[in-house]
Amino acid sequence: MYYDEAEKLSRLEIERLQLMRLQRTLRQAAKSPFYGALFRERGVDPEKVTSLADVRRLPFTTKQDLRDSYPDRLLAMPQSEMVRMHVSSGTTGTPTVIYHTKRDLDWWASLMARCMHMVGLRKTDVFQNMSGYGLFTGGLGIHCGAEKLGCLTIPAGAGNSQRQIKLLMDFKVTGIHIIPSYALHLSTVFAGLGIDPRTLPLRIALVGAEPYTEEARRRLEAMYDMKVYNSYGLSEMNGPGVAFECQEQHGMHVWEDAYLAEIVDPQTGEPLPDGELGELVMTSLGREGMPIIRYRTRDLTRFLTGQCPCGRVHRRIDRLQGRCDDMMIVKGVNIFPMQIERILMSMPEVGQDYLIILERDGYIDNIRIKVEIREEYFVEDMRTLAVLQKRIASRLRDEILVTPRVELVEHNSLPKSDGKAARVCDRRGEGA
Amino acid sequence: MYYDEAEKLSRLEIERLQLMRLQRTLRQAAKSPFYGALFRERGVDPEKVTSLADVRRLPFTTKQDLRDSYPDRLLAMPQSEMVRMHVSSGTTGTPTVIYHTKRDLDWWASLMARCMHMVGLRKTDVFQNMSGYGLFTGGLGIHCGAEKLGCLTIPAGAGNSQRQIKLLMDFKVTGIHIIPSYALHLSTVFAGLGIDPRTLPLRIALVGAEPYTEEARRRLEAMYDMKVYNSYGLSEMNGPGVAFECQEQHGMHVWEDAYLAEIVDPQTGEPLPDGELGELVMTSLGREGMPIIRYRTRDLTRFLTGQCPCGRVHRRIDRLQGRCDDMMIVKGVNIFPMQIERILMSMPEVGQDYLIILERDGYIDNIRIKVEIREEYFVEDMRTLAVLQKRIASRLRDEILVTPRVELVEHNSLPKSDGKAARVCDRRGEGA
Ligand SMILES: [Zn+2]
Ligand SMILES: [Zn+2]
Repeated sequence: MYYDEAEKLSRLEIERLQLMRLQRTLRQAAKSPFYGALFRERGVDPEKVTSLADVRRLPFTTKQDLRDSYPDRLLAMPQSEMVRMHVSSGTTGTPTVIYHTKRDLDWWASLMARCMHMVGLRKTDVFQNMSGYGLFTGGLGIHCGAEKLGCLTIPAGAGNSQRQIKLLMDFKVTGIHIIPSYALHLSTVFAGLGIDPRTLPLRIALVGAEPYTEEARRRLEAMYDMKVYNSYGLSEMNGPGVAFECQEQHGMHVWEDAYLAEIVDPQTGEPLPDGELGELVMTSLGREGMPIIRYRTRDLTRFLTGQCPCGRVHRRIDRLQGRCDDMMIVKGVNIFPMQIERILMSMPEVGQDYLIILERDGYIDNIRIKVEIREEYFVEDMRTLAVLQKRIASRLRDEILVTPRVELVEHNSLPKSDGKAARVCDRRGEGA
Repeated sequence: MYYDEAEKLSRLEIERLQLMRLQRTLRQAAKSPFYGALFRERGVDPEKVTSLADVRRLPFTTKQDLRDSYPDRLLAMPQSEMVRMHVSSGTTGTPTVIYHTKRDLDWWASLMARCMHMVGLRKTDVFQNMSGYGLFTGGLGIHCGAEKLGCLTIPAGAGNSQRQIKLLMDFKVTGIHIIPSYALHLSTVFAGLGIDPRTLPLRIALVGAEPYTEEARRRLEAMYDMKVYNSYGLSEMNGPGVAFECQEQHGMHVWEDAYLAEIVDPQTGEPLPDGELGELVMTSLGREGMPIIRYRTRDLTRFLTGQCPCGRVHRRIDRLQGRCDDMMIVKGVNIFPMQIERILMSMPEVGQDYLIILERDGYIDNIRIKVEIREEYFVEDMRTLAVLQKRIASRLRDEILVTPRVELVEHNSLPKSDGKAARVCDRRGEGA
């Protein structure tokens, strides 16, 4: 039932293992020029970390730190021990680079194989990887996991839809790795060929790399008659294989034998209680070549509370809720547009668009939300609409802890830029 | 000095090993539907192959056989034992597919690592693979060899020249895999950036996948101040790692512990003596998942005679001389355009273009060759030109064993199609 021993660990065993590996990781990190200097400067002594709670006293590592350390100031071992690097192009000038030793790669492939095994893939499966290869970790990362698990792995790469479909059919592919937008596109190519993708033996899709909604997942599952599982990874923590959904499809288990995960307030860096939305912070616990301590992922999620029915105690994180850089602070409270969107989209009366307006009345911040209502509801009488308005405001207050002013507006009445709705408008800096 | 024991084998040891592995390979191949049926039909009994010479009694396998066996009639083990496939798109409709077990992949990576070690790459090297990844074997094939050897491997993939150059410089890359035309293109990008590639720490380039001349090799070596080594491989025999130049840069050693190579007459299939140009035929000696017996590569080369000064006794093949499908038969003799080109291009008086015309006088075939002469030579007196004409004819006769009629023509006087010279014109079928 389990791929390896680590999946069966109890909470206590996980925490014991984490502490041991955290200590080892800190000692290893201290050998790198970057952490060596940082630890000296901040007075960090790896030997004085004696409990997992001590991790909070360690400094964070940011994307900017990685850029400033380019190309090799984070190496904890001689470069001759490294056998691969992945480079993220990034949107700014300086790339970030992650190095791996042979042992690091084996460990990464094992974690990835464990993810795939968890969702039901076996060595008898034929697995088509539709990810671009090369410097992007989705290609080689998933590929090596699939080979390690023993699947017949087809390194199809990205694009060339006709060939993808030919491979899927000719080799009776049962598992795929695909990005959601491409899966939707591919279904139109199937339609053009007059082939119903539900007739394929395809059972399982691994999906990551792009934010997408639960609704989109269910649509893909129906279109292809397959199960779709969410994957979370980032190149700084290897790539895919960091957190993965089990067959419950309710949150992604973080492999806590390999990563120490925290959720912190993106503003203060203070830890947040389980269930609260915040920034995911990750520490690698198994990497020897280039350990990274308390990496600020800028990704927003929360720990899910309670036990997963699958039996694994590795903590689950929620579907990603966007990036920290989208965060708004209103009346001292952190609010993320995704929180508002999720509530609005769960209400059948609400249409596709909304606009969040931040304003200042004297010294007090206010949040005003214009919400498009579906045509069929807008014809209702004023009283019904007033009730709806109150219900929306109340649901939002429960989520964001601030009461917004809700305005219901007609379908297609909100401004759009580039055909895409503008979601947030901050007017607090505008005049007195 | 050597990467592994197999490099040190004596001729006798190689042949003993080859026979043992050929027998094992035949027994293994017999388990596949394709060879099972073929062996029964042709009365091949693997147990009756008792000497290497017996290989000549085995049937050939052609590209068409692979197409007809699509997708899995060549599998000698259950598909669940396979962990990767590479698919060649080919130019025609049906692709060919090669399957690998985990053991097959390890073996392939070791052969590739041996090639790289032979030309001087070590685990201290930084190696940038500029090959496309995915289904094409040049990506993952070279990549896995480089990782196995322990080089710091950069999976750069194809294209994006500015990034390639940034990686080459930032990571002090010492070894690359690149196709010749791209290496030439990249040098112009370097020039545009005002960077002299000779100032990079680059030492070694592995080059394959495209036919190119010795002159082009020397030009690349000078441009980048690096050594360029030729690589030969084909996906049917895994991909790169089949034959590789040693530091002598004189012919490519075929790894005879892993492959049984023959040179045959492309018309009759009969073996040719060492030194004669013919079709390379390959048998895999180490593949368990999908052995291939006597594969007709359609590639033209010859065995080089004599000992290689490097000390390795694995036989060397010459630089590829084109494809069998270009073969002409004149007066019962097989002639390849590349043979003629090579002689012409070695003579300083000859320009860039030539035209081979095949004609029939009654029942007798004739070969006529129009040769463009460089401008500075064409101004010579008639007697000098007549001497040159005779010298060209004599040199060609020594190579192709037929005396051609040579006509010297002025620079730019030959017909071109699409800007490229038309090389062969067969008029033997025209009229009476
Ligand atoms: Zn679970
Ligand atoms: Zn040699």
